[in-house]
This record gives sequence, C-alpha cells and structure tokens, in this order.
Amino acid sequence: MTNRKILSVVLLAASALSHATIHPSDTLLWLRRTPAPGTATVTCNRTTSTARIAADELRRGLGADLTADIRIGAAKDLSSEQYRIDIRSGHCVIASRTDVGALYAAYDLLRQRQLRLPADTAWTSAPSYGLRMLNHWDNLDGTIERGYAGRSLWQWSDLPGKLSVRYEQYARANASIGINAVVLNNVNAAPEMLADTCLRKVAAIADVMRPYGIRVFLAINFSSPAAIGGLPTSDPLDAGVARWWRRKVDAIYALIPDFGGFLVKANSEGLPGPQDFGRTHADGANMLARALAPHKGVVVWRAFVYSPSDADRAKQACQEFLPLDGRFADNVVVQVKNGPVDFQPREPFSPLFGAMRHTAVAAELQITQEYTGFSNHICFLAPMWHEVLTADTHRPHDGCTVASAITAMAGVANVGDSPDWCGNTLAQANWYAFGRMAWDNALTPQQIAREWIALTFGLKGKDAEPIERMMLMSHEAVVDYMMPMGLHHLFAWGHHYGPEPWCDVPGARPDWMPSYYHKAAPDGIGFDRSSRGSNAVAQYADTLARLYDSPQLCPEKYLLWFHHMAWDAPTASGSTVWDALCAHYQAGVDSVRAMQKLWQAVSGKIEPDIHESIGRHLRTQLRDAIWWKDGCLQYFGTFSRRPLPAGVEEPMLELDEMRRFGLDIDNYTCPPRGFF
Amino acid sequence: MTNRKILSVVLLAASALSHATIHPSDTLLWLRRTPAPGTATVTCNRTTSTARIAADELRRGLGADLTADIRIGAAKDLSSEQYRIDIRSGHCVIASRTDVGALYAAYDLLRQRQLRLPADTAWTSAPSYGLRMLNHWDNLDGTIERGYAGRSLWQWSDLPGKLSVRYEQYARANASIGINAVVLNNVNAAPEMLADTCLRKVAAIADVMRPYGIRVFLAINFSSPAAIGGLPTSDPLDAGVARWWRRKVDAIYALIPDFGGFLVKANSEGLPGPQDFGRTHADGANMLARALAPHKGVVVWRAFVYSPSDADRAKQACQEFLPLDGRFADNVVVQVKNGPVDFQPREPFSPLFGAMRHTAVAAELQITQEYTGFSNHICFLAPMWHEVLTADTHRPHDGCTVASAITAMAGVANVGDSPDWCGNTLAQANWYAFGRMAWDNALTPQQIAREWIALTFGLKGKDAEPIERMMLMSHEAVVDYMMPMGLHHLFAWGHHYGPEPWCDVPGARPDWMPSYYHKAAPDGIGFDRSSRGSNAVAQYADTLARLYDSPQLCPEKYLLWFHHMAWDAPTASGSTVWDALCAHYQAGVDSVRAMQKLWQAVSGKIEPDIHESIGRHLRTQLRDAIWWKDGCLQYFGTFSRRPLPAGVEEPMLELDEMRRFGLDIDNYTCPPRGFF
Repeated sequence: MTNRKILSVVLLAASALSHATIHPSDTLLWLRRTPAPGTATVTCNRTTSTARIAADELRRGLGADLTADIRIGAAKDLSSEQYRIDIRSGHCVIASRTDVGALYAAYDLLRQRQLRLPADTAWTSAPSYGLRMLNHWDNLDGTIERGYAGRSLWQWSDLPGKLSVRYEQYARANASIGINAVVLNNVNAAPEMLADTCLRKVAAIADVMRPYGIRVFLAINFSSPAAIGGLPTSDPLDAGVARWWRRKVDAIYALIPDFGGFLVKANSEGLPGPQDFGRTHADGANMLARALAPHKGVVVWRAFVYSPSDADRAKQACQEFLPLDGRFADNVVVQVKNGPVDFQPREPFSPLFGAMRHTAVAAELQITQEYTGFSNHICFLAPMWHEVLTADTHRPHDGCTVASAITAMAGVANVGDSPDWCGNTLAQANWYAFGRMAWDNALTPQQIAREWIALTFGLKGKDAEPIERMMLMSHEAVVDYMMPMGLHHLFAWGHHYGPEPWCDVPGARPDWMPSYYHKAAPDGIGFDRSSRGSNAVAQYADTLARLYDSPQLCPEKYLLWFHHMAWDAPTASGSTVWDALCAHYQAGVDSVRAMQKLWQAVSGKIEPDIHESIGRHLRTQLRDAIWWKDGCLQYFGTFSRRPLPAGVEEPMLELDEMRRFGLDIDNYTCPPRGFF
Repeated sequence: MTNRKILSVVLLAASALSHATIHPSDTLLWLRRTPAPGTATVTCNRTTSTARIAADELRRGLGADLTADIRIGAAKDLSSEQYRIDIRSGHCVIASRTDVGALYAAYDLLRQRQLRLPADTAWTSAPSYGLRMLNHWDNLDGTIERGYAGRSLWQWSDLPGKLSVRYEQYARANASIGINAVVLNNVNAAPEMLADTCLRKVAAIADVMRPYGIRVFLAINFSSPAAIGGLPTSDPLDAGVARWWRRKVDAIYALIPDFGGFLVKANSEGLPGPQDFGRTHADGANMLARALAPHKGVVVWRAFVYSPSDADRAKQACQEFLPLDGRFADNVVVQVKNGPVDFQPREPFSPLFGAMRHTAVAAELQITQEYTGFSNHICFLAPMWHEVLTADTHRPHDGCTVASAITAMAGVANVGDSPDWCGNTLAQANWYAFGRMAWDNALTPQQIAREWIALTFGLKGKDAEPIERMMLMSHEAVVDYMMPMGLHHLFAWGHHYGPEPWCDVPGARPDWMPSYYHKAAPDGIGFDRSSRGSNAVAQYADTLARLYDSPQLCPEKYLLWFHHMAWDAPTASGSTVWDALCAHYQAGVDSVRAMQKLWQAVSGKIEPDIHESIGRHLRTQLRDAIWWKDGCLQYFGTFSRRPLPAGVEEPMLELDEMRRFGLDIDNYTCPPRGFF
C-alpha cells in the first residue's frame, strides 16, 4: 500500500469517527484529493437528503480553516439549478433556490478549494443547458456496446435488493460535474427493459441517483408494445399502442416519481420505428411525448438515421429531420450527433444545428472512445467538443454557434466497472470534461485540463504543464494518425479498432465500407460533397456552403470530407494532397512520441502505478499510430503510386500482413494492450 | 518473364549455338549481367578443363568488340596464381603460370568490362593470401548450423551419382572472386563424414570444384578413430590412432588427389580433442599434419576455445595457444576468429594476431549473419572486416596490421539452397566481399560495394550512390542498435536472434549468459578487462594495452568491452555513459530509417521483385532495431534508473512482454519476416 493510500485510509478513519456519513470514495476520480485535513464547520437550513449531502461534502472537504453556511430556498432571483457563493474572511455563504443548486455549489466550492484558495470573492453559476445527460450503452447481460472499461455498473441480477457501492460513487461523481440525467441502457434497446421486474431494478438505481440530483432515463425499443405487450402492432398512431405506452409510463412513474423519460433510436441501423408503419419520426416521438407529458417526462429522439440506399449518408439526417422541424411536441428533444456521419475523430458539425429552429435539439457527443482508440489511446476530447460548440452555424445569422443552437447535451458514457472506471486514468478526464462543458459551454479545453489535473493529481502550474500539453495535443494527434484532412470511416469492420481502409466485406452495406468514404482511386481521394458532387454543402448556411464548396477555400481539416482531390492537387500549405496527407500521418506518430516525452517528464510527480500504466498506454498508442500510418499510406499509395515525401518515415509494417490481421474482439471489448 | 530475362535466354540460346559449354548460370549472383552481346574471339594455348573454362567465360562475356589471347605457362616470373593482363586496342593478352591463374584473370577482365571499358592498360594481380577458404557449417542431414539461406547445397542422398547443377554454379561463383578452398561440413563434425561411402560423395563434389581451382577440405571429429574406426582411443600420440589417420588420409587422396586437408574444432564447446587425453592442441594438429604432409595437405586448427570456468573468456584463446607458438608443423594453420569472443557485431581484434609469430595464422570471419540479423537484416560486412584487417597490432612493431599477421582467410559461408543463395540479394554482397578481400586485402569497402552494385544491378556512379551509401552505413547501424560501445553477447539464448540481455537460464554456463558480458548493475555497465580487472588488455602490445587500459583514451567503440563504467561517467563526446548508450541505440534505429529512404530512392532502377523484397527486409530490420533498442535500454534502465535523454525516443514495446517473447526457431533456421 502506498504512503498516499495509507494516509487516505487514516484520514478516512479519522473522519469516520466524526461523521455519520462515511464515503469510501474519497479516493475517487477527480474527487480524490483532500488538501486540507480536518472538519469544516458547515450549517445548512434544510435537511433533505440532497441538502445533507451538500453539507457533508463541505464538512469533509473544505478544510478546518473555512466555514460555510448553505441557504436553500431564499434566493428567488436564482433559477432552479443556479447558485451564488460568497466568501468573506474564510466564511462561505451558499445561496440557491433548490437543494440541488446547493449541491452543485458545494462541489464548485470544493473544486475552487483545490485549485486555489479563494480570497474574498463572490460568484454566481447557472448551467448552460438544463439537460446534461450521460447515455450508457449498457445491455442487460452486463456487456457495454462500445465500452472499454469493463462491464456495466448495473448489477441486474443483484438488483433491486443489493446495491453496489459504486452506484452512489457514480452519482456523486456525476453530481460533482453537474450531470443531472442518466440513460441506463443501450439505445439498441431490449424490450425487456420495460418489463415490471426490470423497472423495479431501475427504480432502485433511481433511488440512489435522486439525492444527487440525477434523473434516470431509459432507452426504449419502439416495438415494445408488440414485443412484450403482446399487441399485434407498434404503430404509434394505433390507439392500443398509445394506450399501452401511457399505461407503461404510468407504471414507471409509480415506481420512479422523477423518472426522466425515454431515449429513442428508431428506424436506424435496423432498429424498429414509426417508419415501419408508414409514420414519421414526429408521429413516433409525439405519441411517446403525450404519454410522458403529464409526468413532466421528456422524449429524447435520436436523429442518427441513414439509409443503405442513398448516395451520401452524410445528408440523410438533415433530409429526414428538417421537414419535421416544428412538428415535435414541446417535451421532445431531438438528439443530434456532433457530425453528419458517426463520431469520427473529426467531422464538420451536423447541418441540423442551427437549421432546426423550432425544435429542441441536443448535441450527442461520444465520450467512450469508439473511434479514438478505445481505452488504449490517450485522447482528451474537450478540444474536439470545443471545436463543435464554438462552430459558427451562421443560422439564423452570423455568430450563432452550435452552442447557441442546442438546449441539451448528451454524452455516450465511457464508464464501466473497471477499477479506474473509464479504462485508464486519463480517460476519466473526458467524463469530467463532458460534465463541465455541459454546465458551462464557455469553458476552454485548457481550463478544463488544468482543473482536472489539479483535482486528480494535485499538480498545478509548471508541475502540471507537461500533462496539460500532452492532453491538449492528443486529439489532433489522433486525427493526424488516423483520419487527417477530413478523411473518415477508415476503421476496421465490426469492432472498429485499427485501420482497414481496404475493407471489403461481400454483401455488406456500401455505406459501412471505408471505400465509400475515402473513394481512393488512381485519380485521387476524398468524397465529393461539393455542388459538383453530392452537394451536401448546400445543407449549410450559404456562407459556409460557399466556403466548403471551394477546394481552395475549404479548411484543410475538412478537405477530403467535402472534395475528391487529385493526388497532385495543391493544398493551401503548398504541398500536394498526397504529400500533405503523408505529412499528417507522420505528424500524428511524432505527436505520440512527444506525448511520451511529456509524460516521462512528470515521472516522480505522479503515483508510480498510474505513471507506469499511462506509460504503457502511450506505448500501445505509438504502435497503433504507426499501424494506422503504415496501413493507410501504403494502401492509399497503391492508388497514388507516389513515394513518401522527405521527412515521412518509410513503413515498418507489411501491407499484406495488415490486410490479414484480424483482432479477436467484438463490439464490446477492448484489445489487450499487448496484442501488437 | 521480365524483358531482361527474355534477353538472357535469347543470348543463352545464341551462345549455345556457338559453344560446346553451356552455362545456365548467366543470370547468377554478381555474374548475371552481360553488357556486351555477341561472342568474343578468344585463343588459348592450353586445353585443360580450367583453361577451357577461362576461354569460354571470355567468349561469352567479353563482348564481340574485344579479343583475347590466354598464354599459360610462359611467364615464369609470376607466382602460381598470379596473372598479368595487357590490353591494347581492344586486344587482351592474359599471361599466367598456371591455368588457374588464367581463370582468375578471365574473371578479373570480365569484372573490369562491367565496371568500365578499359582503355589501353596493363596490370598484374596476385592474391594477398594463398588459402582463401569458405567454411560451410553444413550437416549431413541437410541442415546448416547458423544458416539462413535454406538447406545445404550438398545433396548427400543423390551423391555421388547425381550432381546438382548448383555445384558448378557455386564453383564458378567462388572462382570469380578467387576463393580456392571449401570446407564442406560443419566444424561440429560428424565422424560419419569420413566413412568410405561419404568420401565417395565428397569426391564427386571435388571433381566439380577442381576445374574452378577449388580444393575441397573436410571438418573432422577428433574422436573419429574411436567413433568410426573402432579404436579404443583417439589419443593423438597413440600409434594406432596415428596409423588410422594416415590410412584414412591415404584413402581420401586416392579418391581426391588434390584434397585440401582437415579443418578441426577440438576441445571447444564440448567437442572432443587432444586435451581429452592430456595432450596439447599442437600434439593433435601435428599428428594430423604428419598424415597429410606427404600429400601436400593442410591442417587448419581452430583456436576458438574457452573454458566455462575461467573468469574472462576473452583471454583464453591467447592463453591456450600462445604457449604453442612455433610448435606446430609447417602444414598447420591456426585459424583464429577476428575477435576474442565470438563474431560479435564489433570486437577488438584477437590478440593472437601478431602474437603468434612462428605459426601460420588464418583469420576466421563470419559471412553468415549469426549475430548481425540473420538473412533478415541488411548488413554489409566489408567495413567490419576492413576494420579488422587494417588494425595495427603493433607487433612485431608499429604498423604491422592484422592483414600482415595472417597467411590465410576463412569465411563461415552464408550460402544455402535458397533461390537467391544467401537469403536475400544484398547478403550476396558479403560472399562477394569476402572473396575479394581475401584476394586483395587492400581493397576498401567502398571499392567492393561499387564493384558489386555494378555487377549485380548494372548501376554505377550517381545511380549506384544510394545503394552504396546504404551498404556502407549498414554495419555501424547494426552495431548501434544491437551492441554499441563495446557491448557484446546480448543476444537471445539458443538461436541468437533478437535481444535478451536479461537472459537467465538456470544451470547454464555463466559465459553463455549475457550478464557475464554486460555486467549491468546499479553502479554501471561493462566488463572490466583493464589492468584493474581481468587484465585482458595485457595480451595486446604495450601501446595498445595502455590505450585500452585507460577509460579516457580507450576508443568509445570498445569502451564497455574493456571497462566497467559508471552510468554517469563522462565519455569523450561529453555525454555520460548512459546518455551515450541511449544515443547509440537511437542512432541505430535512425540509420535503418535512413537506409529505407536510400533504398526507396532506387525504386525503378532495380528489378521490382528485388526492390520489394529488400524493402520488406528493411521493414523487418527496423522493427527489430526498435526491439533491440527498447529491450536493451529498458532493461539496462532498470539498473541505471535514469531517463532517456532528449532526442532518444521513448520505447514502444513492453519490457515484460519482451522478456516472455520466445521465438519458435532453432540454431538452423531464420525467423519468418512476419513474426513480429
């Protein structure tokens, strides 16, 4: 046991003696550091569970040199989750309208305590979005689709009687970053999720979430009425179907009074939906919305749709949902992935943002690293999300960002039952970043990184700088060594780990094949989405459409997303497309090497086992980056027939071997780091 | 079939029409290019097989624009293998004492024809050494110990009746580079080699070799009298044993009148020998010498001996053989490996060179790449051998090089039955280089490389430059990424491929363990052979001993061979030992990358299949170089406990995985290139 762990245990024991509530999670995630031992004196005017949690958190974590007073309910000028903190001479006054507001205030204050000792100061904070949600793609059998951190937290066979200690730890972690909603199950939903026995288990989880301000949602299978209700149809306009859903919803609320609502993936990738019955997405969503409205529940309806028959998948979400703008009930939120295809390392923002102006829209981001290296690669996603949120949609006018076009944020969780929750310590930063950005969409990646490093490692300023630099450069590194310059969907069939731009599965949907997206040929590479091609550019505001439509003006980072370019075509940098592509892949590899050096520089400042573990991850990442570079450039080179430019390393791996390489993993697992 | 191959076939057919002797090997090795079609007019005053071969070679290869006249026997001023070539106005006169001299002249003239068209000029050439020998470590079962080019050329089950076409091709290739002796079988010799049935097979091979001036030798097992003769002993001073050997030798010469003699490995690595009977190496060698002398045969007695009990293996050859100097019969040659240990990528020269002044000494070099990457890595060995030959022994006085201390050269062959003879095309250059250096020990590696590139690829000047640079840098690259700064014997147990500095085989001979040699410890690394340690330095001339004895003066390339150095000790370059070690490993990896770029530059100038094949080899070499660097530096780092310096890449491979890594190969095979 390390000295730090011994210290934590001693502190824990000490605090156990003085408090009724014992939290075994004081070494948890970004909550693990307690810089100021001793108990703070804290008063609170409410005794609800939530209020008591807020007060206890401050007693345990504020430090004996500070005092706090929590005043809930008085400040009518504050919105429901808003709070005000006022610090004078070591005494902190927290004011909020609700006890949840006070809870968020407590965590904010504790965070400030870690980052810097606040002098006399005051501030107010309200969330940027009312719905700040995690989506778990957990299945009832305990597997997690695209999960790389162990198995599902939810122990279905133990529930409802036995509650894992992790449920409360999870709730606490989420509350500390302002997450107030959780979808427990996979959007590829099993109808069984709504069976009564299952709902009782869900209710047990909801009971643990509730004091932490978190509402539980469920993903539903649209054919549930037929599948588990015995109905002959699941047509949303069928009275019996609507009745079935009303009764199901009522039953849920009888068990879970603050149930959040449903998340729906319908008519997408083979899932059932209203279109099976000749109905629209709005028909389906609104039927569910009517059932939920009396209980103040919400329908979150995903816009992730694409048909295997269309010539440009990137256009379809827009094509299907824009005509429905304004037709959704008030308690429907349309959840749109950040980009038009599917969570690629970089995509232009979805044109639905800013276009659907009469519908509540949520941005769906992916925290789990399905396309950015699983839990093997270090990839801090805040820069990616920041790029999305700050993108100017120019709708309804210039300066209207994606951030301004949405009212909610959802993140596909990277959480599982592995000891480190997320597969590795650095991946925890993405969970943290998602919560912080959902609460405050103006936070910069740098600010978030500095917070997280200070909270997790106790490092600030110069000591933290190497880690901060490593985190901030990591996403661009992943883009560069995987899919630079707007390339996308080059990954391996099925499990999605590693490059497979040559993938050719007989009989597969063309839009699941990498070649559909890169269109590499002797004449060039890239997908022509310009006005001379699929014209997907036209889905954007005119200003953007003109920019994207021109190969000369289009930002290089999107060039091959919007254009099929000749290998020798010049790019803005002066290099040819081929040379620039090669240079990007090399830059990605070099970036990982630089990340290794940065991480090495903090050896001795980080717990040895964490330092060694991330060191291992970086070594895997470097090998994988070379695998990506060597696979993609050699494969594309068979079309370009050009040598690698100076400064780009010749490959070390054989193309024909990489083509035969098959990982023995599925959509629910992460390759062991030693396989390659 | 490529155009070139078609052309060759046409030429072949054309020449077949005009000549009795047809050689199917006109596309063979460095003999493959025929720049000048048509038949030259050649006259010769002798009609021996050898003379006719010489004349036919010139007819086929000189070109119709030149004529030649071979005059054998007249020039009494020339030594037995010497020749003179005189060219005036396109007419070449070859003068030699023997027909073998004329044969060597023919190959020299053909070589010049390829390199540059000689204007009127004349030159004389005599070999630097009378015995220029290949040692094959081939076993009777067809395997080749430390062979990486397929199986043994010698088809024992087909002999003596059926002769593989490759025997003559092999003889021709050797004659073209002046090799005049061949040991057919492994120095770990099977007594069965001397059985009568075996000897008849050997005779059949000797018949093919003879016209090409090549004498056949055999490696013998010292216990043959007991093993196959039924004698109760093999004591060299036993009259019955001596008689047995005399009769055996007579029987051999009855079959093979120009038999060369015996190569003997005795009392080494468990092989039997005179010391088993309390006799000396000289006793054993002289007994055999007496049997061979009447037939003008030679005993080549290896000095590769080391006892598992001594504290410094590097001293033992000297300790055992120096006292015997002057005690060997006149027809005994003591064959000494270039360095005191065993063919490591770099060793200081063996102190026996220059010390044994009353004994004929041969240098034994290793052409097969047992310790330099098998037939996977590109490693041109001429620079290594040049370093050995030009080393100043200072004995008997300053300026006396190793080259001047020897009268013969032996090379452990890298030849097998693979289509490319040596495992890859570039490896052929080492066979070529050995022969050329044995004939002319003043040739530089650059001259040899240029010859070989021109002969093999038809490239000269600027076109050849990238290949020349790649070849000339390759040996130092191997030293750097495997065992720099005098490190040695770090390779894997058994098969010797890849790093295993951590090797620990319970119960194994200590001097077979890498730790015996590197002695890595928290206080430093390296073997103290200075006067403060094993004092191996004292085996050298005083000038060298003083140089090697000083850590400050000792050349960095031998530093850890002669000294145990602290990790922080300064080196001449200004870096610490640890930092310099890391930089060398990185330089090795970087060199391989540079070699890849150089090879890429000649794409299109080389046959595509050869270019692609060597490209593959270089990729394997790069992966292996990284394996060596990551394995050695991480392992040594567990002792040094220091970070890698700036400019040295962090590892990409896991030490604990490399420690478990076990190749499924033996001492007779090469790992497939895709294993890693």
